Amino acid sequence: MDIGILVIGDELTSGMTLDTNSSFIARELQTQGWGVSAVMTVGDDNNAIGRGLDYLLKISSALVVTGGLGPTEDDVTTAAVAGAFGLCLHNDDIALARIKDRYAGLNLPWTENSARQAVFPEGAFIINNPVGTACGFLLDRNGIPVAVIPGVPAEARRMFLDGVIPLFRDKLPNREYVSKKTIKLFGRTESQINQSLSLEYLEIPGVRVGFYPRFPEIHLLVTSRGTRMDRVEETLSVVCDRIKEKLGRYIFGYDNDTMEGVVAALLTDRELTLSVAESCTGGLITDRLTNVPGSSVFLERGLVSYSNRSKEELLGVPASIIEKHGAVSEEVATLMAEGIRKLAGTDIGLSTTGIAGPTGGTEEKPVGTLFVGLSTGEHTTCRRFLFGWDRRRMKEMSAQVALNMLRKHLTGESK
Amino acid sequence: MDIGILVIGDELTSGMTLDTNSSFIARELQTQGWGVSAVMTVGDDNNAIGRGLDYLLKISSALVVTGGLGPTEDDVTTAAVAGAFGLCLHNDDIALARIKDRYAGLNLPWTENSARQAVFPEGAFIINNPVGTACGFLLDRNGIPVAVIPGVPAEARRMFLDGVIPLFRDKLPNREYVSKKTIKLFGRTESQINQSLSLEYLEIPGVRVGFYPRFPEIHLLVTSRGTRMDRVEETLSVVCDRIKEKLGRYIFGYDNDTMEGVVAALLTDRELTLSVAESCTGGLITDRLTNVPGSSVFLERGLVSYSNRSKEELLGVPASIIEKHGAVSEEVATLMAEGIRKLAGTDIGLSTTGIAGPTGGTEEKPVGTLFVGLSTGEHTTCRRFLFGWDRRRMKEMSAQVALNMLRKHLTGESK
Repeated sequence: MDIGILVIGDELTSGMTLDTNSSFIARELQTQGWGVSAVMTVGDDNNAIGRGLDYLLKISSALVVTGGLGPTEDDVTTAAVAGAFGLCLHNDDIALARIKDRYAGLNLPWTENSARQAVFPEGAFIINNPVGTACGFLLDRNGIPVAVIPGVPAEARRMFLDGVIPLFRDKLPNREYVSKKTIKLFGRTESQINQSLSLEYLEIPGVRVGFYPRFPEIHLLVTSRGTRMDRVEETLSVVCDRIKEKLGRYIFGYDNDTMEGVVAALLTDRELTLSVAESCTGGLITDRLTNVPGSSVFLERGLVSYSNRSKEELLGVPASIIEKHGAVSEEVATLMAEGIRKLAGTDIGLSTTGIAGPTGGTEEKPVGTLFVGLSTGEHTTCRRFLFGWDRRRMKEMSAQVALNMLRKHLTGESK
Repeated sequence: MDIGILVIGDELTSGMTLDTNSSFIARELQTQGWGVSAVMTVGDDNNAIGRGLDYLLKISSALVVTGGLGPTEDDVTTAAVAGAFGLCLHNDDIALARIKDRYAGLNLPWTENSARQAVFPEGAFIINNPVGTACGFLLDRNGIPVAVIPGVPAEARRMFLDGVIPLFRDKLPNREYVSKKTIKLFGRTESQINQSLSLEYLEIPGVRVGFYPRFPEIHLLVTSRGTRMDRVEETLSVVCDRIKEKLGRYIFGYDNDTMEGVVAALLTDRELTLSVAESCTGGLITDRLTNVPGSSVFLERGLVSYSNRSKEELLGVPASIIEKHGAVSEEVATLMAEGIRKLAGTDIGLSTTGIAGPTGGTEEKPVGTLFVGLSTGEHTTCRRFLFGWDRRRMKEMSAQVALNMLRKHLTGESK
């Protein structure tokens, strides 16, 4: 059975604060081999908390409750949990002394309501808070462990990892092993990938393949679980190999890889330098590449040649060519890539020119038209694309397409 | 009674993706005068969805369900909702035709499983998706409206605002009037703003001021509600005026304004042209400016002068100056701004040079040091900043600071 998460706070149900704790807790539970039955978020309200506990206890083998343990009047979690379970509250003198010490250590003024944080339901096992003042606690509810921790993210995370997980490991036997890998693809839609991965590739006991679109990429999360660690790892690697066999040419990375990081690593490894001439992408390609630490090793310069004049002056694209073929054309993209490469004296020149919209399209070259040029010492290639996205997504797709063309050139896949 | 939110997706219960939809929906519900009974998140699982619906229906006067409406096998929401309510599924030919049109418009290949998105429970009112392929729908469950929309954030937000809210307004009577305005600030922390807005500015009956940090900006959402529409509007405008009186110099825009949009409008209105020389921001400034449709009117060119050589060749910054003062220096930032302005023949030149890290810092110029240069025909100014963020946020903050300097120059606030 799975573990339920109850998140408490008016600031969450009003949409004022984004809950990041439950996502963190869910991920950590999964790496321990436990699933999540449901996450529920309710306000600082006795009835809502009581109802939520009741519901989650029915569908879970353990509960994590977070939020509402502070010193102020609107922190009602301890009393609400005690009330729901029919338990009395008592002051814990050892915890009170520890909290007073902590206030002194943090140079915080002691106020009477701070003592609220030393009140616990009877029978509670106290979970220490190494980074804040409010302690957490663990209760047993008809054999189901219920851990209650504060909602401040730094405290919740630390106490969940150091306090709650070891307690749950003691109390929840027969844990499964879980291993997972994210496979990152570009150049195929979710539907196309789904069709390529026919059932024989996916319906393997203990394995689940999830689709996570991250525009303009598709990420596949492959999760393998079971009782024997070696089998779990082996199954994961078999499934990943099968997916690679089928879709390898669209896979650009795994886990924490990014398209710009992969391109940067390839350029750095091969000791190649790059310059970029961008028109419709407006600087997004160099912005992404310079997110990678150490990008100054390979990136010589970028040019956002938004005007025709800058294409002529800085890239040597003749005005007559622009006039004849238009600034958005195969000829101009090719000359831009060659121009920036020669001007910057780099190994590779990359260029984009296109119509991001919403206006500027023609029948022959509608909004969404893109040309990408790639020039090396040996040859220059140019590819034409047509997209239907809005202006921002057109830019994102265009930058991605250009980086992917460069990646395939570097890996030799484009040949 | 309040409204329940059911969020569906394995990527959420596995902690792979952070749910931002429920927070957005909760905030928008609140601005409409409705509360949230509970938010529940479950995986792509028939039983979990059915149980969650059952629970939320008992404590809510309306439901919003989001996620799991895509074309793939793991999108089970439509079938699960129909199953829970005992409804048959049917194909909607009009929706199918519309989805096929949309695929064609987006130049996406049509695959058979895409037709899954044209299947709806009997009696469902279809909610159109203006930004994606999966439609939503509205069902009535014993008098409780249940709206089901996709989970992709851009789609969920647009469909919730344009599709769901008007439907709920029809079906949930006795609503208060609500009026709201977002005030966007830059240059002050949340605590500083909170201190400036003393209680007399905020404690007005029927008004709520929420703080929404959106790095590197702070947005204040001012909501006014009551039974008389004219009073609601008047109170909103009084409170916004008071905030402007107190914090006006940090306010750069309202509601849908963006920093780059405000700068673009100022340049366009004043018929001024701009060129940008970026080092540490790596193209992010021109990327942001070119997100604004029509930016080619004022943006002549951008240059990402990542290498010293490009600073010399393309901006005329003498090698001796770079050697003497370093590439990250007031002298170089000043010459970069002047150089790009003269070279591009624009009214204004903007430049950035800094140390984005994680390495490259010195005692005198640690990681996080930034110089921004701004050159006009009349004079050139340079400002030095020091930030403590990671590489990406350092870039975001640097681009924002540069755009804000340009904005203040254009409005005359910098004098």
